Amino acid sequence: MNAGLGNKIRIGILGASGYTGAELVRLLCRHPGADIVLMTADSHAGEPFDEVFPHLGGLDLPGLVKIDEVEWAGIEVDAVFCGLPHGTTQEIIAGLLHQTQHSVVDEVMREGPGDAAAAIQGTPRVIDLSADFRLDSTETYAEWYGHEHYAPHLQPEAVYGLTETAREQLPGARLVACPGCYPTVAILPLAPLLAAGHIEPEDIIIDAKSGITGAGRGAKQANLFSEVSEGIHAYGIAQHRHGPEIEQELSKAYGDNLTINFTPHLVPMNRGILATSYVRLAGDTTVDDLRACLEARYIDEPFVRVVADGVAPATRHVRGSNHCLIGVFADRLPGRAIIVSVIDNLVKGASGQAVQNMNVMYGMAETTGLEQEALFP
Amino acid sequence: MNAGLGNKIRIGILGASGYTGAELVRLLCRHPGADIVLMTADSHAGEPFDEVFPHLGGLDLPGLVKIDEVEWAGIEVDAVFCGLPHGTTQEIIAGLLHQTQHSVVDEVMREGPGDAAAAIQGTPRVIDLSADFRLDSTETYAEWYGHEHYAPHLQPEAVYGLTETAREQLPGARLVACPGCYPTVAILPLAPLLAAGHIEPEDIIIDAKSGITGAGRGAKQANLFSEVSEGIHAYGIAQHRHGPEIEQELSKAYGDNLTINFTPHLVPMNRGILATSYVRLAGDTTVDDLRACLEARYIDEPFVRVVADGVAPATRHVRGSNHCLIGVFADRLPGRAIIVSVIDNLVKGASGQAVQNMNVMYGMAETTGLEQEALFP
Amino acid sequence: MNAGLGNKIRIGILGASGYTGAELVRLLCRHPGADIVLMTADSHAGEPFDEVFPHLGGLDLPGLVKIDEVEWAGIEVDAVFCGLPHGTTQEIIAGLLHQTQHSVVDEVMREGPGDAAAAIQGTPRVIDLSADFRLDSTETYAEWYGHEHYAPHLQPEAVYGLTETAREQLPGARLVACPGCYPTVAILPLAPLLAAGHIEPEDIIIDAKSGITGAGRGAKQANLFSEVSEGIHAYGIAQHRHGPEIEQELSKAYGDNLTINFTPHLVPMNRGILATSYVRLAGDTTVDDLRACLEARYIDEPFVRVVADGVAPATRHVRGSNHCLIGVFADRLPGRAIIVSVIDNLVKGASGQAVQNMNVMYGMAETTGLEQEALFP
Amino acid sequence: MNAGLGNKIRIGILGASGYTGAELVRLLCRHPGADIVLMTADSHAGEPFDEVFPHLGGLDLPGLVKIDEVEWAGIEVDAVFCGLPHGTTQEIIAGLLHQTQHSVVDEVMREGPGDAAAAIQGTPRVIDLSADFRLDSTETYAEWYGHEHYAPHLQPEAVYGLTETAREQLPGARLVACPGCYPTVAILPLAPLLAAGHIEPEDIIIDAKSGITGAGRGAKQANLFSEVSEGIHAYGIAQHRHGPEIEQELSKAYGDNLTINFTPHLVPMNRGILATSYVRLAGDTTVDDLRACLEARYIDEPFVRVVADGVAPATRHVRGSNHCLIGVFADRLPGRAIIVSVIDNLVKGASGQAVQNMNVMYGMAETTGLEQEALFP
Repeated sequence: MNAGLGNKIRIGILGASGYTGAELVRLLCRHPGADIVLMTADSHAGEPFDEVFPHLGGLDLPGLVKIDEVEWAGIEVDAVFCGLPHGTTQEIIAGLLHQTQHSVVDEVMREGPGDAAAAIQGTPRVIDLSADFRLDSTETYAEWYGHEHYAPHLQPEAVYGLTETAREQLPGARLVACPGCYPTVAILPLAPLLAAGHIEPEDIIIDAKSGITGAGRGAKQANLFSEVSEGIHAYGIAQHRHGPEIEQELSKAYGDNLTINFTPHLVPMNRGILATSYVRLAGDTTVDDLRACLEARYIDEPFVRVVADGVAPATRHVRGSNHCLIGVFADRLPGRAIIVSVIDNLVKGASGQAVQNMNVMYGMAETTGLEQEALFP
Repeated sequence: MNAGLGNKIRIGILGASGYTGAELVRLLCRHPGADIVLMTADSHAGEPFDEVFPHLGGLDLPGLVKIDEVEWAGIEVDAVFCGLPHGTTQEIIAGLLHQTQHSVVDEVMREGPGDAAAAIQGTPRVIDLSADFRLDSTETYAEWYGHEHYAPHLQPEAVYGLTETAREQLPGARLVACPGCYPTVAILPLAPLLAAGHIEPEDIIIDAKSGITGAGRGAKQANLFSEVSEGIHAYGIAQHRHGPEIEQELSKAYGDNLTINFTPHLVPMNRGILATSYVRLAGDTTVDDLRACLEARYIDEPFVRVVADGVAPATRHVRGSNHCLIGVFADRLPGRAIIVSVIDNLVKGASGQAVQNMNVMYGMAETTGLEQEALFP
Repeated sequence: MNAGLGNKIRIGILGASGYTGAELVRLLCRHPGADIVLMTADSHAGEPFDEVFPHLGGLDLPGLVKIDEVEWAGIEVDAVFCGLPHGTTQEIIAGLLHQTQHSVVDEVMREGPGDAAAAIQGTPRVIDLSADFRLDSTETYAEWYGHEHYAPHLQPEAVYGLTETAREQLPGARLVACPGCYPTVAILPLAPLLAAGHIEPEDIIIDAKSGITGAGRGAKQANLFSEVSEGIHAYGIAQHRHGPEIEQELSKAYGDNLTINFTPHLVPMNRGILATSYVRLAGDTTVDDLRACLEARYIDEPFVRVVADGVAPATRHVRGSNHCLIGVFADRLPGRAIIVSVIDNLVKGASGQAVQNMNVMYGMAETTGLEQEALFP
Repeated sequence: MNAGLGNKIRIGILGASGYTGAELVRLLCRHPGADIVLMTADSHAGEPFDEVFPHLGGLDLPGLVKIDEVEWAGIEVDAVFCGLPHGTTQEIIAGLLHQTQHSVVDEVMREGPGDAAAAIQGTPRVIDLSADFRLDSTETYAEWYGHEHYAPHLQPEAVYGLTETAREQLPGARLVACPGCYPTVAILPLAPLLAAGHIEPEDIIIDAKSGITGAGRGAKQANLFSEVSEGIHAYGIAQHRHGPEIEQELSKAYGDNLTINFTPHLVPMNRGILATSYVRLAGDTTVDDLRACLEARYIDEPFVRVVADGVAPATRHVRGSNHCLIGVFADRLPGRAIIVSVIDNLVKGASGQAVQNMNVMYGMAETTGLEQEALFP
């Protein structure tokens, strides 16, 4: 482990006044191997953190500063979590990583993963929660996000940080792109099934339902309590940016390009995403085969669990925890199955997975700081 | 019109202490052509109605009596709304309709629809909100509802009361089976498309999301506030009783038997159902064809509206109203489309449609008593 | 009645894109004596109304225009409802009423109330939903609203439009200031008790709880779903602007100046205000006296109802309706009582009361267009 | 510490299928000094715990058994948490404690608190979450709970377990009665002020607002989602059983008997209680004195915090945590103040405080297992 005071990783959180920022603080402030030393915010800079987030009052935390006013030279930060708007992140990370000239990956190759952390000494490692480095293709990025990629030279080294699949790359990673919330809940159940050839790549329909925190903390009329409570609606139909991200990762699992339907809905709840995925069984595959495949894949994973036959996972079962629950069901339509998966979008879908990645990057037990059970009701 | 005092239809409501019962009272108490003369309840019998439903206090309503204690001989009731648990309804309706020997349908045939109401004089006409007479096949009923049909002799004359398709049969109907809430929101957009041959009958996936009132007013742990708020889950996956009901009506529209996927979810809101239907375009059909087909079908309907291109209907847009909104979207998957439809499950999905049926049955303007706009927020 | 086409009052709604504006449209679009001919909005000007408020789609309404672009000369408007931010309203209303030189009140005095409407012919009458003309004293206004009153010359003729107490002044009024939502729910139960000398004027504590629509439709972080759902908090403690407004009206009822405690709380619901008022009984007054006093006062009122002994009014019992329910309870503290009152803040607390006032101003039945029962659940 | 395997306290949870039971499991399953060895449930006995509470799946927990079928002789349990309905608890605890003949208190007196735990060896110590042993007077109990006390001989030794005031008695306690949720949130701010003579004992008004979990997990119509969402109401006005409990403890703090107003309201949220207390300042006391008094009292307490001047505590700031936040405000009424306090009713108001008491009883650090920050949003 590369270490700060008392062998703790010194943490910087960029964009600490949003929901994912607050969630990082909640998880890291009790993390035995981490020490928050820097927090930036934009409109809330200068305000005491316990006024911005009174639920985190009484903690000994650094003040919120504007990102432009951070004097990086004078601060020793080992890991930087980025919770900034897309676009912004690319430029800031490019600046942050500018100092290091040598390829971290080369070092790791040469010295073995054990020395990875040491190899990266001197420049902070970046765990990005934005969408800026998730898409392998900068063309695809430009197409879906409406502007050219601002740091295309960094894209090749970015590790797509779905911890369960990225575990080997993380120790040597200098830049980790944490998956979107929708991609996390969709990829975890579907990738193993595609990899095993158990489901057809055509006509995969992912009907997803998300809580409102997924829309962030920005002051938008559309997210006011009275606009979204007591109702449900679909949005971004056939146009949501998480569509191509899901396709990228499912295509990797399948071994060839595929296209999926992804239809998100907004549900009047704070946290949680539920994905109902409709799939066609390949060849002679049975629904039991799907279940067995997923159980085998996740039996040793600390945060992914296939629930008992007949049990329908609910988002409230993972609220506040880093868990993903998966249920497998036969369809009435012959030759088809229904997969239901749930996560807390702010934890496994964002800040929790980011901490999980950090744990692996720095050689700590993967569950450190993430042991909390779900909060229900 | 067969008429009571002042030419108003004298109404009985069986099961008035549930949510659909209260909704009937809300709609009928201001209906210029109706007069509530009888209300039954089970556990709440004997309680003042304004204690059972304080939101309907201050009205001049009959007291709640037990259904067993109703002396039918002494009461003049023209129309009976049944909001009783399934099974129960069949026996009670069989009793109610026992008196009339002659076939109403015969009369209508003989005398023309104009005299239908007159033909039915002397016995109450029944508008049933339960599932007891919705399925044409009593075998299918027994299979899905777990007991033999108790009034199979009445099933043939029951009219499936989706008003928009039943309009011609209603004036002569003695027994109307109002559709379930899920079937209403699914059939309205899909039936015309199947009838026109615009979508394939295979692989229709109906992912539906309902508010909690759909589960009724019974005291069940599963429906406590703290069990269902702040979360979402699927239930009855591949096993919900509204599946075969939807299939029955879509099969009629298509002209041949078809099977569908129907997957309901429970959303933390009181009212509303949203159905996201995933369909495959037939032949050269385009998404614009779907939209044009539905617009043409519903242009003259007072309660069904195809929303503007790009607008995603939300359940809160129909809260408390008898409207159904329909949106049509292209899918990213080639050759497929997505249809989003919404209703208020207690109004168009239950009591509102029942009143709409009554209006047609008795020759009143179809929108009478149903003119209220949606309540938002 | 002064009349437009077909003897309907021609209505202008200024600020139609907020919640009170939408609520005015909901109530007026079905009102048999009103015809909406003008609607203004600011940021939403130019957008089709059914995109701004899809729940009111399918109606035949005028387009939204910017208030600055209204050509008043070319429009015949009988009544203008103002739902604009405070301050703004004063200047706009001053402009609107500029044309009329003669004193309406004088005319009424001279010709009797029967000809009041006729006397006002030619200039629109104003029903203001903002706080701009509620406070009799322009000094008090300046102190609490942070700026000088912009139309002090109009303040003397403004009628404080709590319909139940303003009924005699309304027919002759040219400018009606509709009460705030909190004042409405507080004054209705307390004013008669103070007027009768039944409660002491000291130490009246009004602990109020409001739904989120009370905060308006502006895009503020504090009102995002995820900021306010699943929680409750007090706000504006001892500093809320409705405090002096309540004091003004209760002082009038009591006959001398009094000071009250008013503490509002924000509750995660869309609509509704509940006030729990803690009062001390005067002299030998009993709790039964309080109840009798209120029952006598409101027995003939169509929208105010004292509920049965032991029944606790809930906001959901008045949702969407123009009703106010009042419950009276003995306290455990000797010599004290607890009064619970509820309204829908958008109806009786705003747009419903505005329509009620319009009905009285124009000599229509007071309940016209307001007959809807509450929507529960 | 009296110890089980690996020096952990062996825990029994009676009534594990309710909300407080689940919350105990959530907190204790990660507690480094505790080991859950027994869990009872009534209707859910025999069901796997992860079906009763899927959010706690994947843990290694004992099965749920009926309380009647527990063979106490064969089980080694050090501490028993009781989350049973009132009345029931008295008899069961009487049975549990029957074995020990000697007075624990005597032992403690003789041997000093250091040996208290040892003194109690051999019989489980009881931490009761019900109301059965909270009231010192068994007459008062009978009056408010509708039946005679079933274990009056045990009442004298029961410690009222508001940890902050009971800290010295807990190490020697055999039977701890954890305070009710409302009493906890009311006593923490008010007791120190009364003890210091800063507020008058007359006319204390406690207007409290609670989430729905406070009503328990029993299947009651009144607590269905659709009955309580989107609304607020008062209940148990002047008759709630927590009234006398609050009076008992505030009377102790004040030094003489006092009576209070306590008015609870039900808010559509899962967790949290907010109390708005209206008090009269004694003599020359200022609002600043109140604040200073509370700050001095709680400066060293890990779970109670006086928030900054002007900040209004919200229940969402303590969701899922064991914290109590207190705000102090001047009233507009001269000589009065307003105190706002918040807790999570299931944590500091029930299971968290029970664990906090256990920690003190067994000589562990008081915050063990309770370090989690609040979950917001």
